This record gives sequence, structure tokens and C-alpha cells, in this order.
Amino acid sequence: MPVTIIKAWTDVQASSTTHIVLMEIVLLGSGNIATHLGKALKMAGQNISQVWSRNNEKATELADAVGAVPVSELSEVSYSADLYILAVNDDAIRSVAEQISISDGLLVHTSGTTGLDVLEGVAGRTGVFYPVQTFSKSKAVDLRKVPIAVEGSSPEVTNTLHSLASRISEKVMSMNSVQRRTVHVAAVFACNFTNHMYVLANKLLADQHLDFDLLRPLIAETALKIQTAEPASVQTGPAVRDDQSTMDKHLELLADDPALSELYGKLSQSIINYQK
Amino acid sequence: MPVTIIKAWTDVQASSTTHIVLMEIVLLGSGNIATHLGKALKMAGQNISQVWSRNNEKATELADAVGAVPVSELSEVSYSADLYILAVNDDAIRSVAEQISISDGLLVHTSGTTGLDVLEGVAGRTGVFYPVQTFSKSKAVDLRKVPIAVEGSSPEVTNTLHSLASRISEKVMSMNSVQRRTVHVAAVFACNFTNHMYVLANKLLADQHLDFDLLRPLIAETALKIQTAEPASVQTGPAVRDDQSTMDKHLELLADDPALSELYGKLSQSIINYQK
Repeated sequence: MPVTIIKAWTDVQASSTTHIVLMEIVLLGSGNIATHLGKALKMAGQNISQVWSRNNEKATELADAVGAVPVSELSEVSYSADLYILAVNDDAIRSVAEQISISDGLLVHTSGTTGLDVLEGVAGRTGVFYPVQTFSKSKAVDLRKVPIAVEGSSPEVTNTLHSLASRISEKVMSMNSVQRRTVHVAAVFACNFTNHMYVLANKLLADQHLDFDLLRPLIAETALKIQTAEPASVQTGPAVRDDQSTMDKHLELLADDPALSELYGKLSQSIINYQK
Repeated sequence: MPVTIIKAWTDVQASSTTHIVLMEIVLLGSGNIATHLGKALKMAGQNISQVWSRNNEKATELADAVGAVPVSELSEVSYSADLYILAVNDDAIRSVAEQISISDGLLVHTSGTTGLDVLEGVAGRTGVFYPVQTFSKSKAVDLRKVPIAVEGSSPEVTNTLHSLASRISEKVMSMNSVQRRTVHVAAVFACNFTNHMYVLANKLLADQHLDFDLLRPLIAETALKIQTAEPASVQTGPAVRDDQSTMDKHLELLADDPALSELYGKLSQSIINYQK
């Protein structure tokens, strides 16, 4: 399978590439992504041999959960694994990668924003394995419904990563680094900024001694609506109606908080502009 | 029951005020709120006698659905109903209210932003009946889970509205006009601005020929997380980590769109400020 842009979900069942051998995998990192990926890969029958983390306790905890050996020094990382998953902070990817020795194993990072080129020269076969989801350690997520974007340094690597990803998710896409970064920025809007909207709403309510439960059904319904609809087609509120009188009343209420007033104005203007 | 601030959900089952007589109700308006409230009240056994709307066709459609008579002139509105629900645009509330004659019926509007005082002098008994939800005509919503904020011009009116609301929702609160406006502004952040985040994310993906399905599971998970958690405790993303390098890469990708870049910067700064 060539490294082309696939715009629809790949039909995993029909793919001839799903039959891959058991892999020996080393997890580098013990954060949310390492934890969720590690557990899902273990469940899918893969062999996680080691978990490395700077944090001994976290390495041990995750290693125990996936039947692996915890290691705290990068020099102890196995030379002969098939796959090394670098699930560390973006700015640590390069330095961790440079400190391990890999024979002919495949080295991948899990970052949405970082290009594949960050791994250039560190290993012969490199790639990216990026799950499009927000993970909390304490909350289980069904990875089968989580899109996974893969990229490889060669068609063979992309193929291998695609097959592996298909073992844990029904939604696997090959994507280049620019596309993946776009997905990551879009996810910042759809997830991080959205959650910040919830934070601001909660703050407004709390200032009036009102419970956030007042908005929880509304938030659920807003996210539910776009599961089947295009977001622009279900936009509601004063800005999309260009209802200046209501927006003025809202700005009056927010007058004590200049930062929040400004944000209200900018977001309303963005909605109005988008309509045009 | 006095018009005090109730900060927890009222225990409807334990309330002695839930036993109210059957009401004759006139619906003024045929939009989303009139439709959803009308159907729910009808299902709860209330008698909807008339539906008035400037739009004949819509009046007839809703009237048919709730077993009422459609009227297209305000002069035809019954003089003797128990309750008049004004579910019209905020800026039409006063003028519609002034054109109907009410004997001793109760007149309420359904606006989050508009104060109770907009109805001053129009009827002897006035109130507000505000469901905290986003409604689309085509999509059914279970009103029992939707918070309803009520306010009355007297304790007796508040009591009556509270009882009526309790017939269709498990979550009824008495709230003054400032609190209700706060809830509405908070809802603009949590619903309208949130949906706009989805719109912007979708636009980014579409520009790269990527499907919005990539983000739907993430959006669902983001809304699901805060059903049990405080939003600030589950904030993720580059801004909350003050990860300037990732934010710079994102801004680079957005460089062609100055408005979107600015919004990205403002929202990231708001997250950073909130952390402090």
C-alpha cells in the first residue's frame, strides 16, 4: 500500500495487510498515551517487553499492567525489539530517540504536531502512530472507535503501522505530517478550546452560586447534535442571528471582566463573519 | 414557597406544590421553544387551547400536534386562558404582550436574557419559564432532564410555575432575572461558542480534505468527561501545559488565516491566564 492520502476510513476487514506477526514492543513513556496504547496493544495480543520512564513508579505501574519489565535507564532498553513507541512530550522525542540503540526495529512517535522528520537519522525505519483522542489516566476509552493516523518512512513501514493500528481501532488513516498537524490544531479547537468554554461557563455560574449541573445536559446535547450533523448547520445563539440587543445585554453582564468581555466579542464576531 | 434562591435541584417528589389543576394554555409563537414546550405540556396532560403565530402554516402545524386551534391574529387570542406562554424573539416579547387581552391569566416569557420586568403592567400576574437547552425543531429532546428556571411576579406565581415545570422536568429551579441572564451567557459559552469551535475545526479539516468524522469521537469524549468532572480539572492541550513550541507550530499552520490565528492566540492566552 503506497503512502497516499486516504480520505475515507480504510475497510480493515477487506485489507490483506491485517495479518501481521506478533511484535515485541517497547513503550518509551508512561503518560496517558503510553498507558492507553500499551493496554490496547496488550489486549490485542501484542507482546510489550519493556516500559521505560524517567519516573520509576509510573514505569513499574504501567509495566505491571501490560506484563512488561520496567526500566529506568535508556541504556537498559532492549536492542532487539520490533517496535519502539515514543510516547513522551514533543520536545523530548528527539533526545530520547538519540539515547536508545535500535538494531532493525521500527521507531515511532505519537505526536500530532511533530513531523516524522524529527526521527531522521535515528533509526532506519521510523513512523508516527497518532490516536486522535483526549486521554485521562483514570478514565477508560474504547480505542476501537478512536481514529488512529499513521505515517511511515516507507510504504512498508506505513503498511506495518496500518496493520497494527487496525488491531486496536476500526478507524485507521494514513496521513502525512502536514495533515496530521492540521488534525491536531483542529482537535485543539474541538477539544481543548471547547473544554475551556466549559471552564468559563462554570466560572460564570459559580460567581452567581449556581451549579454547573445546569449546563451539563446542554453540553451533552451540543456534542450529540454534531455526531450526525454538520456543525455549521446547527449553530444557534445570538451571534448567528446577529441579535445585537442580546449580545449587548450579555456584554453588560460581563463588564466587570474585561478579558471575558473581549473573548465574548471576538467569538461572536467570528460566528458573524463565518455566516457571511 | 417564597422566591428565594434555590441552589440545589428541588426534590419534586417531596414538594407539596406538585398537585396543580389542569391549565388552559395559549402558546404564543411556533418556533423551537414553543414546539418543544407545547408538546411536553400536552404530554403531561395540560390543555393547549390555542397556538398563535404570525406564520399561519407553522401555527397550524404546531396546533395540530398539540390538539389546539391555530390563530393568526392576536385579537383572536382567548381572553380567559390560565396561562399564556410567550415563546417569541426577545425583541418581540413586549409588543406581542401588549396586543393581547388577559383577564386574570398568567403571562410568561421563555427568554434567558430578558428580565421579568419586560412584562410589567401588561398583566397582573407575570413570570418566566426558561428551559436551559438548545432546541432543533427536527430533533426530539427529553425535557425531563432539561433544567427549567422559573421566576414569578409573586410567590404564588413562582409556586404555580414551579409546579407546572415539575410536570415536565425533574430539574426545576427558581431564579431571579440576573441569575437567569448569567445562565444564558454561560450557555452561550458552553453551547453556542462550543459549536463554533466545532465549525472552525471542521473548516480546518475540510481545507486539507479530511473528514469531520476524525473529530467526532474526540468531541463526544470531551463532553462526556465533564458530565462527572469539573471542567478545569480535565483541561488538556498545549496551552494548559504552557507548551510554547507546539503553540508556535500551530500558529505557523494558521498563518494564512489572521482571524483564526488571533482567535487561537486569545483562547490559548485565556487558558494560560485561567491556570494562574
